[in-house]
Order: sequence, then structure tokens, then C-alpha cells
Amino acid sequence: MSTNSTDPMKKISVAILGGSGYAGGELIRLLLNHPNVSLEAVTSRAYKGKFVYSAHPNLRGRTRLQFIDPHELSKYDLLFVALPNGVSMNTMSDLMKKASKIIDLGADFRLNSAQAFTDWYHMPHTAPKLMKEFIYGVIELHRSEIAKSNYVACGGCEATVSILSLYPLIKHSLIETKIIIDAKMSSSQAGLVPTLSSHHPERSGVVRSYMPTGHRHTAEIITEMTPYTSEPLDVAISATSLDMVRGILVTIHTTPRTGVSEKDIWRAYREEYENEPFIRIVKERSGLYRYPEPKILAGTNFCDIGFEMDTRSKRLVVIGAIDNLVKGTAGQAMQDMNCMFGFEETTGLEFLGLHPI
Amino acid sequence: MSTNSTDPMKKISVAILGGSGYAGGELIRLLLNHPNVSLEAVTSRAYKGKFVYSAHPNLRGRTRLQFIDPHELSKYDLLFVALPNGVSMNTMSDLMKKASKIIDLGADFRLNSAQAFTDWYHMPHTAPKLMKEFIYGVIELHRSEIAKSNYVACGGCEATVSILSLYPLIKHSLIETKIIIDAKMSSSQAGLVPTLSSHHPERSGVVRSYMPTGHRHTAEIITEMTPYTSEPLDVAISATSLDMVRGILVTIHTTPRTGVSEKDIWRAYREEYENEPFIRIVKERSGLYRYPEPKILAGTNFCDIGFEMDTRSKRLVVIGAIDNLVKGTAGQAMQDMNCMFGFEETTGLEFLGLHPI
Amino acid sequence: MSTNSTDPMKKISVAILGGSGYAGGELIRLLLNHPNVSLEAVTSRAYKGKFVYSAHPNLRGRTRLQFIDPHELSKYDLLFVALPNGVSMNTMSDLMKKASKIIDLGADFRLNSAQAFTDWYHMPHTAPKLMKEFIYGVIELHRSEIAKSNYVACGGCEATVSILSLYPLIKHSLIETKIIIDAKMSSSQAGLVPTLSSHHPERSGVVRSYMPTGHRHTAEIITEMTPYTSEPLDVAISATSLDMVRGILVTIHTTPRTGVSEKDIWRAYREEYENEPFIRIVKERSGLYRYPEPKILAGTNFCDIGFEMDTRSKRLVVIGAIDNLVKGTAGQAMQDMNCMFGFEETTGLEFLGLHPI
Amino acid sequence: MSTNSTDPMKKISVAILGGSGYAGGELIRLLLNHPNVSLEAVTSRAYKGKFVYSAHPNLRGRTRLQFIDPHELSKYDLLFVALPNGVSMNTMSDLMKKASKIIDLGADFRLNSAQAFTDWYHMPHTAPKLMKEFIYGVIELHRSEIAKSNYVACGGCEATVSILSLYPLIKHSLIETKIIIDAKMSSSQAGLVPTLSSHHPERSGVVRSYMPTGHRHTAEIITEMTPYTSEPLDVAISATSLDMVRGILVTIHTTPRTGVSEKDIWRAYREEYENEPFIRIVKERSGLYRYPEPKILAGTNFCDIGFEMDTRSKRLVVIGAIDNLVKGTAGQAMQDMNCMFGFEETTGLEFLGLHPI
Repeated sequence: MSTNSTDPMKKISVAILGGSGYAGGELIRLLLNHPNVSLEAVTSRAYKGKFVYSAHPNLRGRTRLQFIDPHELSKYDLLFVALPNGVSMNTMSDLMKKASKIIDLGADFRLNSAQAFTDWYHMPHTAPKLMKEFIYGVIELHRSEIAKSNYVACGGCEATVSILSLYPLIKHSLIETKIIIDAKMSSSQAGLVPTLSSHHPERSGVVRSYMPTGHRHTAEIITEMTPYTSEPLDVAISATSLDMVRGILVTIHTTPRTGVSEKDIWRAYREEYENEPFIRIVKERSGLYRYPEPKILAGTNFCDIGFEMDTRSKRLVVIGAIDNLVKGTAGQAMQDMNCMFGFEETTGLEFLGLHPI
Repeated sequence: MSTNSTDPMKKISVAILGGSGYAGGELIRLLLNHPNVSLEAVTSRAYKGKFVYSAHPNLRGRTRLQFIDPHELSKYDLLFVALPNGVSMNTMSDLMKKASKIIDLGADFRLNSAQAFTDWYHMPHTAPKLMKEFIYGVIELHRSEIAKSNYVACGGCEATVSILSLYPLIKHSLIETKIIIDAKMSSSQAGLVPTLSSHHPERSGVVRSYMPTGHRHTAEIITEMTPYTSEPLDVAISATSLDMVRGILVTIHTTPRTGVSEKDIWRAYREEYENEPFIRIVKERSGLYRYPEPKILAGTNFCDIGFEMDTRSKRLVVIGAIDNLVKGTAGQAMQDMNCMFGFEETTGLEFLGLHPI
Repeated sequence: MSTNSTDPMKKISVAILGGSGYAGGELIRLLLNHPNVSLEAVTSRAYKGKFVYSAHPNLRGRTRLQFIDPHELSKYDLLFVALPNGVSMNTMSDLMKKASKIIDLGADFRLNSAQAFTDWYHMPHTAPKLMKEFIYGVIELHRSEIAKSNYVACGGCEATVSILSLYPLIKHSLIETKIIIDAKMSSSQAGLVPTLSSHHPERSGVVRSYMPTGHRHTAEIITEMTPYTSEPLDVAISATSLDMVRGILVTIHTTPRTGVSEKDIWRAYREEYENEPFIRIVKERSGLYRYPEPKILAGTNFCDIGFEMDTRSKRLVVIGAIDNLVKGTAGQAMQDMNCMFGFEETTGLEFLGLHPI
Repeated sequence: MSTNSTDPMKKISVAILGGSGYAGGELIRLLLNHPNVSLEAVTSRAYKGKFVYSAHPNLRGRTRLQFIDPHELSKYDLLFVALPNGVSMNTMSDLMKKASKIIDLGADFRLNSAQAFTDWYHMPHTAPKLMKEFIYGVIELHRSEIAKSNYVACGGCEATVSILSLYPLIKHSLIETKIIIDAKMSSSQAGLVPTLSSHHPERSGVVRSYMPTGHRHTAEIITEMTPYTSEPLDVAISATSLDMVRGILVTIHTTPRTGVSEKDIWRAYREEYENEPFIRIVKERSGLYRYPEPKILAGTNFCDIGFEMDTRSKRLVVIGAIDNLVKGTAGQAMQDMNCMFGFEETTGLEFLGLHPI
């Protein structure tokens, strides 16, 4: 994938701002096994002074790194920012002095307009001028820009899987522009803070319509897809929480344009994704896993995409699945990092996933 | 609900043909606690001679009834038929001699046309003349007919919740006729026979797109809704299996007709369901259970229905939930029985459901 | 069961102090369907003024009762107290003026010695004189006392199932006095307050050794069993939390006394429990449910008990299962109430449990 | 770990006999990412001719290997045998001609006596002379023998975690010889074949006492521990199946010998396991993961061990956790392979596990 030539032994210095959450933990896990990375600092106000493995028990025995206070950060080749939405925009201009390159895992720099940000996040954007500095991190759409950029904003997990599922279809004008995304979500997306909503007796076994309308990732999808169509996009998400910790599955209900055949769909996906190391078209005649299934993607950077034409009711159902914490967040960030620094793009992302699980 | 006046002490004699499966077991559980029912026989070829509680361990200590062979059936006031699809049509004319009234829990007599049956079930119907003898068991649409009928065919579980969610909207012309049902399904729907698909390591944790298109319950929904609209209905189901044993949630994506307001939706539901003992409109501003949630319906006969208007993308998302084995099968059958015999319609169906669960 | 003769239409006035938690909610559910109970008040400081169904969504449509402040309580035939451990002892003498009879679901009055309370709960007991007023609520051991008493303290859930499993064995001198209870626990036992421990991503899928030693219910077991043995009891609990919301299973590792046979075990259980409506001896040669299984007890008042002799290693493994919120708390309380007021002891507790679930 | 010096680029030729099951699939996953392995053949009668990823969907896109018939096997440096118990003993002498080294993942060659095999597996051993050729694969006890051996029999998963938990305690004479192992088991242990026992509606949510006494892995534990004690061992397992796909947790109830302190326990574990790459002593004062937890071990080769002394009841509770398919089977096999061929022992086993999961 990578075109830059680099010393394979080169190590870059990396820090994480906000490393006690789930995305931060996943990033630490991935970076620790990356041969070209020296993970030098991870911050957390809450866990400051404690071992990183006290927040991320899977790292026990693997690292003696301790969380530091954000003020203790020095300078790094790369800074990952994993803060709650609405926080990084307030310090981004300062952070840019700490690191040559920045990858933001939060929502603050994903959109290209302060107005859109305010419309969907219900707060003013405090650094609107910096928005255009950031490239959107879904690398399958922005590889060449990311390779040249210093600032990347990773896509939201739900947006990432939806965009990857839809992009070839919209680019090749295969579907109508009214699109309904029925998203099945997991509990790790809500983050680390216990609430009644995440309380096990209330959360176990649910099929909870937590956001039938109004999901904020709609904004990213519209922003990213608009360049590929001349018609206005009408994208709507209905999100349902399930009893699972990781993973997203989107069932996307679309209408194929007149005359579009299954072969056309195949052709578009192949053309766009043939050489993508982490996208698999999953569509088989039989077998339990003939469509994308998030459970076997846990820990992997894959985005699996499948589809089914409905000849009776003129429909095209597209199905996409990812691990929200890997391809949806930390893995996406690391794939972007590999691209920005000229490493082999798959480095550190080789995990194949478990079956059964 | 019931209008016939009956002796409250009256007991009817009841038998179940095919009682070792999950629907049969649920029916036995309900009938054992019904004050007007004497459950006299339950058949099973596989379990013949064994105690009913050997197949249904929750009944241990409650009944000493033993399964009998189907040939041992004598005559009863009411016979429930719980056989695999495609079986009861072959013996229905004989069964009609065994009982004054019959309630069929299977699919054979749900549709009103042999052609429709063949189209969706891919086999010829062997008793097409009897199809019109059966009233469709969704009582909220057919109460007066059921009260007078001797033969009832219960609705399919997925069809039942979809029909109940849609009926007031279609009857009152509030939505366009293109309707997408995104159904979240549980493992008990597949029945008692172990397969690789139901093997725990493969089935646990899934978000499995087992039928993105072509679900057979579409036929029932179209059949039942067509009388209420002058336009052709375009109904499509996408079904996803989750890691749950009981329950269905349908997320129905519809388009409100121009000018339709949230108040119109409320009014239609109230008008149709105000006096329905088992339908609750669940739509609140806050709270974890502000929309229908199948997990708290386990064991109950409720159908909970909610909705959300999307003003941005002109949409109406309707959400329906039931326990597939109760309101979706055995409870529906018992509610029909209560109606057919003039018992109070809620008798034996008072269980409120568990929370937390 | 009950020997007192009562007017079957008699209704008692009942209130619940502390009704927003899981035990309170379960009690409300049971009381609403009890023919001899008029549930007149339920208190909650947090939910005061709100509908009871806002905390207990399964009761939606069934009751319009609203939570009141504890100070608004008037006088009742019976008051249930469902407060956190260490709270009811501070107000019990006042509460005794509010109601002729009191059933306390908490731990404050379970033990018969202030010292034992302090040893296990690490706080002084503030009403030691009242401790002896309370009868321990495990009715199978205390039926005649409960029938005559005004004050009952329900057993802890883990203690209840362990005591019921062990009582016949100890009473009949069938086992040695060194007893190891390996308890498998569910999340509803921890109550309503969200913590990191109950946060779904952390709690889902766990096999968490949350208390390998030192479980407080040990005190109740020793207190209750001591009268039946002349030797000092050595009881130890190891508790492991599982990914389930309801239910307890105890695997009790004991040593049969020399010469004790399987028949002796059967005889002891039969002798003590033959007429008990809610105890079932579950021990079969085959079948998936040949030993007690908590999942099919959800919502029921059953305590299922089984056992297995190990001839190789001289062992008797006893297995007990209950629903911690029913037989372990609210159902036990209602069974006690039935006894105290001379109602049929099974009234309102007829639910058989669901299968599959 | 390894002492042999080898060419780091050396690749060995490897085949798997019986590769369609869960252990086989896990082994394929691990071998595909091993830099010194060329996986040349995987057999399966049932899947012969099909792609390996048709049985193991996580490998989709990673390998185009197809299953072959066992008869098509040629000669290899190493043959893994993953057959049902009782099968490999019938062909082992032939298999020994196919490969210089063999690692058997099944039970046939774990015990050192045909009589013990018959006692526990209820069939005669058909190759008793070969039993002594095999070294038991728990490398922490047999490293130097494995390094020199051509034939290794991996330990059973339940035996492996129990042996690793107990070994330092028995070797250092810290505990009495009566030992009770309360094992919490997962569904992948039962293998690939669907049964009613593994049928999702029956298996979901269970706390099933599937083997309260008589577990066959007892034989391995006694065989392996006997050399370290002069007293007869009395080991008993009670096994309970939970609703999880991977992982085992053992709660081992032991009695410390008089005078043994917590420090003695620590010292013994440190002395035996200090340099073990895959054993972690997990015992902290606080935190959700202060004891071993199988869920965060999924996919890893770790065996986490913790303990708690009970000063009141003279007890030592030892807690061990592994992923049954990795450290319990395929990972153990690969660690043994690394040792047998002089590779770095951790090669290919670096996965740290996921959190949250």
C-alpha cells in the first residue's frame, strides 16, 4: 500500500492524549505490538500515576507504562487525541505545538463546516479555522491526502462502516439517494462511564431503540458522500443497541437505480476495494457466515461488506460490519498512522479474529 | 372484551396436537393455569409415553400428564394444532372430526389463497378449500369473526407484530405504501431441532443477517393490510438474528403522507387500540424503556408499539415488540380461545413480565 | 399449607417502604396480582411523585400508583421494608407504629446477635433489642413461628438457597460439618445503582471471582444451621459473578458421613420437603435439566435442589437454584405474608417459569 | 526460553490431521501468522475439497488452502493431530511414518497407563506401548523433555489450567491433598457437532451442572501431580457449563498446611513461574480484574492464576483462567512446537487479548 520508502527499523515517538478510555486502550494494545512505534506517554487525569494496565487489564505483564497528566506531555512525532466530543477543539492549536502530526479520534474535526458541527452536536465550534486542516480518516476514500497530511480526524464508527458500505454504490450511481441505515450497536460505543443505561441488569438482553432518528453520524455520511452524487442525499439512521460489547452491523436499505444488476454491484465493489487490505466482500450462497457478521471481527481491522438484491420489492439491502473499536476507531487511526509515516499499511493490524467466539 | 355470557365455572376439554415444541410447551404452561380449561391430551410422536415435563422442564411438579401418540386422540371441545409448516393441511379434514373448534398455530391456513401459499412456502397447498374456513388469529383485527368462528389460524410471530404496528397507520391512510421492516429475531423462532445454525458457539453473540430479503411473513402482512388501502402495498422484511431466546423487535421504516402530524399518529393508535387489553403504546420522552423493548415482554401477551417522527428526513419510524412464543403464538392462540368460548379475553394471560431480566 | 381459616375475600392494606429497587419492584408485581392485597403505598425518595411504572416498566398499563415520600406513609396492616443494609435498624421502632406486621427484606434483622451483625457487616447494630422480635423468613424452617409472628426478616438470597439445600442433610446428620459453597451469582443482586463493576462492557461475559472468601451470608447459614448439629459448623462461600441478571446456583461441596447412602439423602429431603409447595428435588438420570437450573426459575418462587454422590472421591455435591429476586427476596416475603395472614400459602406465586428462556 | 540455536528464517513443513473442528481452526489461525511455519495441508473428511475458510470464517481472505482427505497426506516435519478422543490411538503408528514429530491435541496419549485410560474413558487403549513415547504437553512442567521429544500429547484444557494452578502448591507442600475443583466451562469445549445440549435456546443463559462428579480430566491431574507428593491425592472436579463460548475458570478449594502463610504461596508461584512467558499471577487489592478473568484471555496463550487465603475458615482458594482453545489446546500445541524446533517460545503467541470484550 505505502508508496513512501522508509527505513524498516525506524521508530517514531508516539503519545496518546486521553488513554484511559476504551479507544485509548485499544490504541495502546495495537501500538505496543507495532515494530516501528515507541509509545512514550499516555495521559489520563483520572488514572494519573497508575499503571496503564490498571485501566486496561489485558496489558498486564506487557507494559509498565504509567499514565501521566496531560501537562507532562513533551514533544512527539505523533500525538493521538482520544478525548470526549467537544474537548479537543479547545486545545488543538496548543496540541499542534506538541507534535508534528496529530490523529484525532474524536468528532471535533470530522466535519468540514462549523455550521454542520453545531447543527448535529448542539454546540458552537471553537476552532472553525482548523477544521479544514484535518483530513477525514477513512483511508479508502482519502489515502493520498492522508499520506501527505499532518492532521487526520478519524471517522465515527457508525459513519465509517456506513460510508465504506455505500461509497462504491453512490460513486457508480447504482442506487437512489434515499438511504435508510438500520444500525445495530454495542455497549463499548458509549464509553467508560457507568450509567443506568449501561447498568448490566438494564442493558443485558436489550434490543433497545436508543436513537430511532437523529443520529449524529448522519452528518459525516452526508459530508463524505455528497461529492460523489449530483442529487441531494437523504440519509437516515435508526440505531438499536444490542447485548454485545463490540461491533456494529448496519443493514442499509436502498433502492437500486433502474437497470442495475447484481453484477454491476459486484463490479463497483471490486473496482473500489480490490486492493484494499481490510475490506472483504462477504456474500456467499450458503453457510452461517455468508453475510458480514461483527462477532468474528472482534479485534480485527476488517470491514466486511455484503448485499442482497430483492427482485420482488425493488430493493438492494447492503450489510456492513466492523469492530467499532478497531476499524471504527483505534485500528483506523493506526492504519492512518502507517500511511502518514510510510510504513506498510497493514503493520500491527494482522490479527485475524477469533472463531468461535 | 367478551360479549357472550358464560358460566364462569365452565370447563372445556382441550387437546394439543404436537406439544413437544416450544410453542406447544408455552401453550401447555398457559392452559394449565387457565381456570376454564381441562387439558386432556398432548401428543408427540418423539416423546410419546414420557412426562410432559421431560420436554418442558418448567412444568416439573405441576403436571403428571404424559405425551400420547396422535392416534390416541379422542374428541374435544377444542384442539390446538402445533405442527411444522406444511403438515396440518394434510390432516385438517380428519382433525375437524376430532374437535368442534380448532386453532392452528402453524402457517398452513393463514393465507387466503393457495397460490400465495405456494409462492411463499414453495409447495402446493393440499387443502385449498379449507383455507377460507379459517379466520386469521390476530384478534385486534378479527374479533367479531373469531367469536363466531370454529377455525382460527394464528398469525406468524413476525407478521403479528408487524401487522399490529402498521394497521392503524394504513387504515387511517397516514403512511405511504412502501414499507421496510427491519426485524430483530430470537432463537426460539427456529424451533426445537438442533442445527449448526443454532449451535451455541456459532449462535452466541451473533448479529446474523439470516434473511435480508424474502421473508415469508411478508405474505401475511400484505394479505391482512390490503383491505385497508386502495394502493398496492410494497412490504419488505429484512430479518436479523440476535443472541436472544425470546422476543422480536421490528423497526419499521415508513414515510408519512404529506401533512400527517405526530398527533394524527397518536389519534389513529388510540382509536384502534384504546380498549385492547394487550396493546400498549410506548413512547415517552425519557427513560430506558421509552420505546418498546422485547426483553421485558418475555412471558407476556403484550404487543408494545412506539414510533418516532423524523422531521429532517421525512420519516416515521414505528417500533413494535412482542414475545414471539406468547403474543406471537401460544398467547395469541389462548386469547383467541377465550374469545371463541366467551371467556374473559384476558383470562390466563395476566402475567406482567419481569424486570430486571 | 395455611391452617388459619380466613375470609377468602379479605383484603389487607399493604405498603412498601423503599419500592424503587429491584426487590421492591418484584414485590409490587407480585402484590398487584394477589387477590387479598390492596397495595396502598410505595415510597421512594428518588422517584417521589413519579409513576411506579417509571421505575418498573413491566408494570406499565397495570397500575397508576405513584411513589410517595416515606413521611407520607399512614397506617397499614402490613409494611414491607426494602431498604439498603444498615438503614432499617435506625427506624424500625418508628415503623412498628405504622403497621401491625412488618416484613423486612434487608439484612438488619436476620441475625440473632448484634455481635454477629457487627462481625460480618462491619458496623454496630443500632437496635439490638429488636433483633429477637424478628423471625427468620425461610418458611420451610420457621412456618409455625412465622404464622404467629408480627415481624419477619427475610433471608438473604444466597443464604436462602444454601440453607434450603443443606437443612435436611444437617438435621439428619448425613454430612460432615466442613461445607464449601461455590455460589454462581447474577447482576440483579447488586441492586439498582450503576457502578463500573456493573457497567455492561465490563460485566458482560464475566466469570468474576468477586468474593472468593468472606461472603456475609455465611453468618445466616451458620446461625440457622447450628441448632441442628452438635458439632461446630465450618461453612465457607466462594462467590463468582456471571453474565446473568437473575438467579443463583450453589454447588455445595460436602462430605457424606461414613455409611450414608444415596437413599438416605433422598429420604431426608423427602421427609423435610414432601409437602413444601415450592421445593422440588431435581435429580434425573438424563436430560438437559436433570439438575437444578436457575434460568428456568426466573420469576418463580421455586427452590430446586439436586445432588450427586461421588463414590470415587468420597463426596456429596449438592446443587441448589433459585431466582434471587423471588424465592430469594420478594416471593419469600409474599409467602411469609400469606402465612402470617392465613392466606393459602401459594397465592400469587403460581407462575411456573418460562422455557425456553 | 529456547536454548537450541536455530536459523531464524528456517521454515518447517506442517500439516494438521483433523482441521475442521474448533481446535483445528484455532491452530490454523496461529500457524498462518507464524514466521517459521509453512502450513502445507489440513485434512477433513467432511470438508474435503472446500476452502479452509468455509469452516473457519475468520480466515476469509487470508488463505486459499483447501481441506484434503487424510489419505492425501504426504510427509512433514511436524504433524498436529486433532481428532476425537479414541481415534488417534488406532492410527498413531502409521502417522509416525508421516512426520518426524507429532503433537496430539486429543486425549489418547495424555495418560501414562492403559488402565487409567480405560478407567476414565471407558474403552480399551489400542496402542498402550506408544503411551510412554509421548511427553505431556504442559510445558511449564516438561520443558526440557519436550525440547528433546518427538511426540507430545497436549493436556486437556480443564486439566491444564488446574495443573498450572496447583503445581507450585503441591510441589512446595503447601496444601493438603484433598482438592476440590469447581470448574466453569464454555460451549466451545464440546466441539463442533450440534446437539440439544448446545442448542441455543437450551444453552443460552445456563448455569448447568453438567458433570458434578466424575470429570475425566481428573486422571491427568492426578497423574501429573502425583510425582510431587508422597501422599495420595484426592482430586475431585465439579463442572458447570455457562453461557460463554470460550474460556475456563477454575475455583480450586484447598486447605493450606498448618503454618503456611500468604507469603509462602507467593514465593512458590514466583519460584516456579517467574520466567514463564504465559503465566501471570493475578492478585490485586482492588479493581474489577483483581483475580483471573477468562473473558480478557480470549485468543491469548496466558494462564492467569490468583488466590485468596481465608483466615476464618482455614482455606486457600486458588483461581485459574485460560482460553480453552489457546493455552488449553492450540496455543499450548504451538508453544510446544516452538520448543521442539528451537524457535523462540512466544513466537506467534503475542496476542494480548481484548478489553473490553
